[in-house]
Amino acid sequence: MSAYENLENRFRRLNALSEAAGMLHWDMSTMMPSGGARARTEQLAVLSVTCHELLVDAAMPELFEAATPEVDKTDNPWIKANLHEMRRRWRHATALDSRLVEAMTKAGKNCEMIWRDARPKGDFAAVLPALTEVLKLSREAAAAKAEAFGCSRYDALLDQYEPGGNSERIDLIFDDLAGFLPDFLSNVLDRQAQKKQPMAIQGPFALESQEALARRLMQAVGFNFEHGRLDVSLHPFCGGVPDDVRITTRYDEEDFMTSLMGVLHETGHALYERGLPQEWRLQPVGEARGMAVHESQSLLMEMQACRSAEFVNFVAPLARAAFRGEGPEWAPDNMLALYNQVKPDFIRVDADEVTYPAHVILRYRLEKALIADEMQLADLPAAWNEGLQGLLGITPPDDRLGCMQDIHWYDGAWGYFPTYTLGAMTAAQLFAAARKAEPEILADIERGDFSRLMRWLGTNVHSKGSLLSSDELLEQATGQPLNAEVFKSHLKSRYLN
Amino acid sequence: MSAYENLENRFRRLNALSEAAGMLHWDMSTMMPSGGARARTEQLAVLSVTCHELLVDAAMPELFEAATPEVDKTDNPWIKANLHEMRRRWRHATALDSRLVEAMTKAGKNCEMIWRDARPKGDFAAVLPALTEVLKLSREAAAAKAEAFGCSRYDALLDQYEPGGNSERIDLIFDDLAGFLPDFLSNVLDRQAQKKQPMAIQGPFALESQEALARRLMQAVGFNFEHGRLDVSLHPFCGGVPDDVRITTRYDEEDFMTSLMGVLHETGHALYERGLPQEWRLQPVGEARGMAVHESQSLLMEMQACRSAEFVNFVAPLARAAFRGEGPEWAPDNMLALYNQVKPDFIRVDADEVTYPAHVILRYRLEKALIADEMQLADLPAAWNEGLQGLLGITPPDDRLGCMQDIHWYDGAWGYFPTYTLGAMTAAQLFAAARKAEPEILADIERGDFSRLMRWLGTNVHSKGSLLSSDELLEQATGQPLNAEVFKSHLKSRYLN
Repeated sequence: MSAYENLENRFRRLNALSEAAGMLHWDMSTMMPSGGARARTEQLAVLSVTCHELLVDAAMPELFEAATPEVDKTDNPWIKANLHEMRRRWRHATALDSRLVEAMTKAGKNCEMIWRDARPKGDFAAVLPALTEVLKLSREAAAAKAEAFGCSRYDALLDQYEPGGNSERIDLIFDDLAGFLPDFLSNVLDRQAQKKQPMAIQGPFALESQEALARRLMQAVGFNFEHGRLDVSLHPFCGGVPDDVRITTRYDEEDFMTSLMGVLHETGHALYERGLPQEWRLQPVGEARGMAVHESQSLLMEMQACRSAEFVNFVAPLARAAFRGEGPEWAPDNMLALYNQVKPDFIRVDADEVTYPAHVILRYRLEKALIADEMQLADLPAAWNEGLQGLLGITPPDDRLGCMQDIHWYDGAWGYFPTYTLGAMTAAQLFAAARKAEPEILADIERGDFSRLMRWLGTNVHSKGSLLSSDELLEQATGQPLNAEVFKSHLKSRYLN
Repeated sequence: MSAYENLENRFRRLNALSEAAGMLHWDMSTMMPSGGARARTEQLAVLSVTCHELLVDAAMPELFEAATPEVDKTDNPWIKANLHEMRRRWRHATALDSRLVEAMTKAGKNCEMIWRDARPKGDFAAVLPALTEVLKLSREAAAAKAEAFGCSRYDALLDQYEPGGNSERIDLIFDDLAGFLPDFLSNVLDRQAQKKQPMAIQGPFALESQEALARRLMQAVGFNFEHGRLDVSLHPFCGGVPDDVRITTRYDEEDFMTSLMGVLHETGHALYERGLPQEWRLQPVGEARGMAVHESQSLLMEMQACRSAEFVNFVAPLARAAFRGEGPEWAPDNMLALYNQVKPDFIRVDADEVTYPAHVILRYRLEKALIADEMQLADLPAAWNEGLQGLLGITPPDDRLGCMQDIHWYDGAWGYFPTYTLGAMTAAQLFAAARKAEPEILADIERGDFSRLMRWLGTNVHSKGSLLSSDELLEQATGQPLNAEVFKSHLKSRYLN
């Protein structure tokens, strides 16, 4: 067995164990009774330690060394990329000593627990000491990884979620967007105010009908229920494994659209997982490219495809029939206006497509300053409120609606936020390229046929796994690197035309 | 860290991984879409290999050696028993070389696949070559373990399911029972023929009502839904982990009693798991004693407690209300007669309490002869039919209803069968002792209150884990070793008085 084959075997085992952990996470969120938590936590901890030990095994440096000339000889770009991705994961695992990893896990769990209590009261002071510890350890980890990888501290954290991500480039893109948004938003709001207010659709909407409609649309989009499930969880997510993708949603009797759009969002994630290259299952190169590309697939589905006039023309009669709706509020025009309303508000996860980037840019700027030690945590609430005022013209009345709303920092996930908006921009660019290559896509969608779109995404994104960098992927698929203009055009065309 | 503590850590990790595998097995049978099978098989294979490698790690012999004097010094019987159980598992794992283990897994999978095709056609010749290979490898394994443990080959296999099980004693017990059963059965059948035939209860029985009734009874028995679930699977089983027990059933619209009794059976298993000693979670001594004791807990619930007149008095009005039943067939007397009918038939899993032991004795005798190489597989169908004729007075018309009905041998589980009837006998003996110690038990059950029974079982069986051998457990709980007379008395009292 060659050194490279040896590495493949090791990663196959490691990834099979990670998949097992992924399934147990899904079960924990959907099926597990509360009394199972302690045992499950132990199972997951042991799986995580076992995976980590496989990755930092003493034999790995020699195997990488011996595999390099072997792989240099091959012409197969998948094998080259696979070794590259293996090394990336190994470098992340070995950059931190186990004491720091353990301290981070503990501090994150502790802080998250305090945050869950303190958030409803907006009591930032209560969580500040625990968050200070989390940030201190995250800075330590960032410093260690930055040294090992030869990059900035923030980029070292970002690389965990967006491989190869570069904050200098993100600065340029986000600054451009931050310059564009305030005026644009004010134009959109003016225009909206001039129009007739759309009519609300009144519930209740029976949960069984919501689920049946969700399944109908999942099938239309291309979700294969022989390779996945739809269930209910408190926080919707896409879990499972590529051949058995488990997506979740939650239903609200008074509002069917939030759940439905959520299901379409998770279906976008799910179809990416399903479309990953079959022959590279359980290998690093066979995995999704990163969180920005992943989010691009969910947002392409939810925001680009499924908030289009064409999709609403398709879905409006189905929804009306599902809920036995009557009256003019069920007309596609009204539904389109209703579900594309723009309104600056405090909570990121409830934000519309136009104001969402402002939330992300704010968090990105703050976390970058905090990791670089250019800002003190005690100043976070004020900086948050000032930043939101500058970007959206509103100020949160308290920290519950301000800097305490997201779990990310409290849980130790520093460097994650930019992937949301990079994903939204990537989605716009991919959808524009897809429509250019296949002009029938929207007409198809109006008939409920997503196959042409999914074929294009399968060929240009899903089947690539981690063969290419995010930049290469985007350039090959769209002919250009990430370009904020495409996203801005999309916003202008949807909200001002 | 002492050598013993080191072993505890290793077994904690090993058992946490086994628990993870157990949950994934549950998911595979209840939730997983068909397309997830290949990925799941790989996850389970990797978990199994990882557990095996932990168990046969090169450091283990020295650790056992160093732990022995440490443990000799302690007065804690749990620690002593834990080391004993650790060693038992280690000896089973190391007795076979990995080539043989792999060959057995492969041969079992292959044979099971052929059996699934051949069984409906009763085509024994088609599965004979694959079964020959399975038996050959099982004999090899039995020989290797017999040599390592210093016991007979059959006992070496039996020990996997019933630790310390001894076929010489089982021979005596089963021979006694085999001598008793034919005459007893004929008396029961005579008596049944003289009585009025019970009235059938006609369906359909709505599945939702069946499930609601099942949950109602599970709760009455003491199942805590914060620590477990009830779901549907093709083959009912009890899975999950002690703090999150997952039982399953399947529903038939035309027959509610089979599912209901199945649920009560699995609830017996579940409450055993739930009651295992909390402080020894993830340690071998904290696990259930063996398959005979496990089966005793399900059969005590299903056969001893829940086919009693008292339980039927409790359940009859609930069932009548659940299914809106009317008419005299819902009277407790009729239901009791209906659900305690005896009828010799070909299929073990459908057998009543009186004829079931004959099925087990037949299989036990045959598998013992086959493992000892005293019989050829080609002669199995004829020997089976002859044996069943001798025990139950009926001859299967084909091998589908004969020697091809059970998966056990085809899957490589030789040495398992006797635990069913050892379990039934143990159940009778434990229930008699419980009633003697707590004479109110049946009166309680008539009011739907199982707490007195469950407390007695908790104290005398569940909380013991694997502290005692099966024999010690039974002697301490009932004052005597396994005694076939108690089981026979139970049968006489229920079916002849």
